[in-house]
Amino acid sequence: MTAPVTAAHVSMVTLGVADLARSRTFYEALGWRNTKASQPTVVFLQGNNIVLGLYGREPLAEDAEVSSEGSGFKAVSLAINLPSNADVDRVHAQAVAAGAANLKTPQNVFWGGYSGYFADPDGHMWEVAHNPFASLDDTGAMRLEVFE
Amino acid sequence: MTAPVTAAHVSMVTLGVADLARSRTFYEALGWRNTKASQPTVVFLQGNNIVLGLYGREPLAEDAEVSSEGSGFKAVSLAINLPSNADVDRVHAQAVAAGAANLKTPQNVFWGGYSGYFADPDGHMWEVAHNPFASLDDTGAMRLEVFE
Repeated sequence: MTAPVTAAHVSMVTLGVADLARSRTFYEALGWRNTKASQPTVVFLQGNNIVLGLYGREPLAEDAEVSSEGSGFKAVSLAINLPSNADVDRVHAQAVAAGAANLKTPQNVFWGGYSGYFADPDGHMWEVAHNPFASLDDTGAMRLEVFE
Repeated sequence: MTAPVTAAHVSMVTLGVADLARSRTFYEALGWRNTKASQPTVVFLQGNNIVLGLYGREPLAEDAEVSSEGSGFKAVSLAINLPSNADVDRVHAQAVAAGAANLKTPQNVFWGGYSGYFADPDGHMWEVAHNPFASLDDTGAMRLEVFE
């Protein structure tokens, strides 16, 4: 197959972390699968529609040639959309059981869906949601109606 | 189709931004398509394998029930993988022409690939890369060999 030659996809999300082994264990507990591309200094986990990269915070900054100085809110949320409210409860609980911080217990939210949040061991923020207005394909990717 | 009931996917990445219209214009210039799910206070852009959400930095923090205090390095990189080095050059240049900051001009990198970085108007960091060792499917998703 040939990948689309456009910027409009995300092949991989890389998270800068403090402890690669801890983060790998955490994400494996959520169903991400370790791959043969992983090395001692970097972990590549295969998900349904994307690869999750785990890398040291410092080398990630170095790779992008930016400063690693920074703290607090990252202004990024990664969403796991699921087919039902019960699935949201289950996956959110699974994350907390694996060591995530519970930022927001899943609940009905103003836009008509059901959503909770957790943070991974480095504070990276994930939303777990059921959105009754959005279609999901069989990889968990969201399909919305575009303007023609 | 039925979405997988597992945490191992990313349906949507939401970026907290300062100016929704500016960010929407920027990402549309990169090929992301606006959708009928967008509203005055939130933008949902359809990509090949994922939805990109744009939301105010403050309401994103409020939605997760966390503080919006934070600055500097976010320790998150979103990667656009492409089929060739020439594609990387073209998409990186397209982003810079659309107003991105050029963090790293695409170049051969130590792991054997070809990679550059840009930052969007709010400093969200994107890598544009060709990885000769990774397969991409026809949505731009990366497919690595998992451990059985």
